[in-house]
Formats: sequence, structure tokens, C-alpha cells
Amino acid sequence: MAQEFSAHESTFLDQLIAHGLLIPSGVQGIYGKSGVMENVICRIDELLTDIGREMSADIMRFPPVMNRVTVEQTGYMKSFPQLLGSVHSFTGKHREHQQLLNAMEEGQDWSQSLPSTQDVLIPAACYPVYPTLAGTLPEDGRLVDVCCFCFRHEPSPDPARMQSFRQHEFIRIADAHTVEQWHGEWIKRGDAFLRSLGLEPVVAPANDPFFGPGGRLLAASQQEQQLKFELLSPINSSEHLTAISSCNYHQDHFASKFGIYTASGEIAHTSCIGFGLERIALALFRKHGLDTAEWPVEVRKRLAI
Amino acid sequence: MAQEFSAHESTFLDQLIAHGLLIPSGVQGIYGKSGVMENVICRIDELLTDIGREMSADIMRFPPVMNRVTVEQTGYMKSFPQLLGSVHSFTGKHREHQQLLNAMEEGQDWSQSLPSTQDVLIPAACYPVYPTLAGTLPEDGRLVDVCCFCFRHEPSPDPARMQSFRQHEFIRIADAHTVEQWHGEWIKRGDAFLRSLGLEPVVAPANDPFFGPGGRLLAASQQEQQLKFELLSPINSSEHLTAISSCNYHQDHFASKFGIYTASGEIAHTSCIGFGLERIALALFRKHGLDTAEWPVEVRKRLAI
Repeated sequence: MAQEFSAHESTFLDQLIAHGLLIPSGVQGIYGKSGVMENVICRIDELLTDIGREMSADIMRFPPVMNRVTVEQTGYMKSFPQLLGSVHSFTGKHREHQQLLNAMEEGQDWSQSLPSTQDVLIPAACYPVYPTLAGTLPEDGRLVDVCCFCFRHEPSPDPARMQSFRQHEFIRIADAHTVEQWHGEWIKRGDAFLRSLGLEPVVAPANDPFFGPGGRLLAASQQEQQLKFELLSPINSSEHLTAISSCNYHQDHFASKFGIYTASGEIAHTSCIGFGLERIALALFRKHGLDTAEWPVEVRKRLAI
Repeated sequence: MAQEFSAHESTFLDQLIAHGLLIPSGVQGIYGKSGVMENVICRIDELLTDIGREMSADIMRFPPVMNRVTVEQTGYMKSFPQLLGSVHSFTGKHREHQQLLNAMEEGQDWSQSLPSTQDVLIPAACYPVYPTLAGTLPEDGRLVDVCCFCFRHEPSPDPARMQSFRQHEFIRIADAHTVEQWHGEWIKRGDAFLRSLGLEPVVAPANDPFFGPGGRLLAASQQEQQLKFELLSPINSSEHLTAISSCNYHQDHFASKFGIYTASGEIAHTSCIGFGLERIALALFRKHGLDTAEWPVEVRKRLAI
């Protein structure tokens, strides 16, 4: 039975913190996790790894940072400049160090002078994968299972909108027909996976939050072409649905940028299905309650918790 | 039997990449991991979680980013300014976006104008823990089990020196006597854990790479007071030893900065033992060879691989 959280009592975030499941850091969207919360997240991750293994996917795991040049190549800064985390670092000597410490001492911004490094935070789990596929694919293409921490700079009091969160993705890279079919199949497969955890996701066509005056047009076109769908579930409130999984058909966008070709020499197509691990875990706590010991027995069994 | 890697053939990094264990990103110190490599890393992590559970440690897991203010409070920028990763993000509107894209198009540095966010990359796994302990400890103090991705900006061709890597740490927070004793015990316990994986670590007193002209003095004092020891093992070459675990006694450094008091009202002391998960995994591949199927049966059994 769904747990009821009344908005006038306290927010869902307050309750997650009060139950020790999330640990506040003083920054919106950055939370530590308790052993219980982390265990649920890791078990969802492992179930997805099992699914990847059944499909004979190639496993790749990345740290939370990636090559800045790769992100430049993807065109991310055209579409989502407001979300990227750019990593900067101090490279001065003793004198600049003293200036930095003085600025910090006086409560000034000491970080503005730091030059950028070669690193940016990964914005989406599939991004580091594409450059590794440059060249000609095998006959039946590739299927990659990837998981990593992603970063999006959008501080929010909604616990579902974390700045740093894990995405577990499957990426299909092959000819257009194969990929388009795969994309369509994952509506059902993603739904079945989430239902196996006792969730009741709603499927909806969707679009990305493209930046700037041209953003609406891009979003409308993406939705019209049915390039993106999401699986949604209540997290922050029982009235509002949040995407817990997202499936994107990129057509030849990434393959053309990274030079990925099918065995017959055409530009490949790509599609990915991403599962937001923290969001799925939070949807489970919203649906089944804050005490995992009281979750439905079949859900506990499925998660082995 | 130890695998022999001849420097004149290729570097250890080359061999890890050739065997598909590490996936290059184009940036030194940032690598993807294969399923085999990641599985070894995760199994080491799980064994440490088991040890933490046996000690009834409180589990905390953090994302790779943390509150900038907390890092300011630790004094990290005094000692290691060159290593911190500061996260910056675009906050402009349409005009600034066009300027950014033009700069990128022309191959200029488009990131220098990005203001800093509230976030920095975590430099050491224990840092996000201290502010959560502010106040008075229970009678026998606290023991925390923490694991997260840490970042240090020190690009290097040595695969053991990654920019982004996982540290699994136990942190003891209590009165001075209890913590000093705990610190001493972990020389033996850390050694025993690593030996259970078939490694033969060397214990050595150590010091941190403090920045600037005063750094040597700080390092000498740290070593003289026996505040830091490391457990070392060959990774990049069979001649050179690399720290795979590090135990630090901070005395009252962190507790005084974050206001952590013992039950009897004194400033607490803290100590942590950190295990470098990628480094331990790499030490295993160096010691037992690049094919896990040929690792000693007792090591495979211990890791359940």
C-alpha cells in the first residue's frame, strides 16, 4: 500500500533525512546515503547488470569525470550549457597561493582565477562510450552496458533532482533499422523491469530541456519524431510524476560526430535506455514506505534485501 | 607466481589497455574499466564493507562532489591547492551562450568565464563525513565506513595515479587515547586484509605532499610524529612501490574545525584508514597476472571471482 506523505507535515526530502536515508551536505541536490539507501541503489544496479549480462552486453564503467574534448564534440554545450560541470584547478606558485588564501580568508571568490583542466563531469552515462566505438562496427553492431555518476548543475529542493547521481544505461549501436526497433522494444522492457520492483510507471513521449530561444523548437521536433520517451513515477509528491528511466533515439547524431560506421559502411545509428538509480530507489521509498522491512515481500525478494 | 612485465616491451598501462582492462579516454589518469576490472574493484569494496559491518561501523556513501564550504573549513587549500577539482558552470543567457560557442568554434578557452558553483570534487573520502559529526559524540565515540570517488588533479602516465579513483575508508572519532590506539592497530589489520588477497605489502611511515616552501617542514613533522603510515605494493613497475592503503592520525585537526566533542566535553581526535580500490585491484593484476582465471585459487575464492 502506498505510503501517504502530507505536504503540510514535512517534505519528502525532510522525511528521507529524518529517517537517516539521505545525509544533507548543505548544498541542494548533494546528499550522502545511508547503508540502507545505498544497498537499495546497488541492488537495482546489480539487477540491471544481470540484464546486460543476459543480453551479452559489453560492460564499461567510467569514473565521474571525462575528457573535455569529447563533450565538446558531442555538441552538449550547444544544447545544455547550463548543466555542465567544468573542472578547474590551481596551477600557480607560492605567490598566487598566498593570494588565493587571502581571498578565501576575506570571504571573497578564490576560485574564479583557477584555469580549467582537461576534465569535465560526465553529463550522461553514454557520453564517454562513443569515442571508444570510432571505426567500423561488427556485423550486428554493438550493445554496451555502462554505469557511472553523472552531474547536472541544477540545485533543487526536490530530492529526485540531485546534482550528482548514477545512470545505468544500455546503448545500442548498429544500423538505423536495428536501432529504431531496439528503441521501440525498450518501452516494454523498461516498463517490465520497473514493474518487477513493484512500481507502476507511466510511459510518456518526452523532450530534453534544450537551452535558449531555439530550445522550444528543438524540443517540439524531438517529441514529434518520437525520439525520446520516459517512464515516470511519483517521487517528490504523489501528484507529480518524475522520469525514472529515459530512452533516447539519437539517430546518427553521435555516430556522425565520432565516426562510427556499420559493417556495410554507413553512418551508424544509436539509442540508449537510461535508468536513474537514485530516482528508482527514491520511487521505491515513496511507493513502499520509508522502512524497507515493511516493503512487499516480493519486492524485498527481488532486491534480495 | 608473479607475472613479469618488461619495461622494454611496453608499460604496465599499455598492457592493461591491450588486455581491455582499462579503456583510455584521451586524458592521463582517466580510464574506463572493463567488466572484469570493475568486478575486482567492487569485490574488494564489498569485502571492506563486510569488515565495516563486523565492526558495527555506520555506513555513509557520498557522490563524487561535496560542499565547497566544507573543503574551505578543512584547510585543504592551504596544504594541497594544486590537487583540488573546483566545479564551475555556465550561468549566462543567450548572448553569453553565443560568445561561449564562438570561442569553442575558434578553439579558444571557452571555460574561463564560467563561475564556480557551490561544489568541489571530493579530495579524500573522509572529508564529507566530519560536518555530519558536529556536536557531542556518544560515550565510545563513532566509527564510520565511507566510500566514494575522490579526485586529485595530478595527470600521470602511471596507471596507479588516477585523477579519479575510489577510496574506502574507516574513520574513528573518539578521545585521543582511543583513537591513537586504533590508529596503531590498523597497521596490522590493514596488512592482514591485503595479505588475504595474496599481496605482500610493505609498511612505511609516510607524509603528505604539502604544497609550497613550508611543505617540507610540515611533511617532516608529520613523519616524525608518526601520524601517517602507508602499506605499499608494486603497481607500475616491480621495482617501484606505490601506496595502496594509508592510515592517518589527524589528532584534533578536523574535530576542532568542525566542533566535534567527546562525551566528556573535550575536542575529539580522529584517524582514518583508507584503501585505494583501483590501486589494490591494479596491485593484484601486477602480482597475479592480467588474466584473473589464472590467479591463485585462494585469491579467486576470497574475491568470489
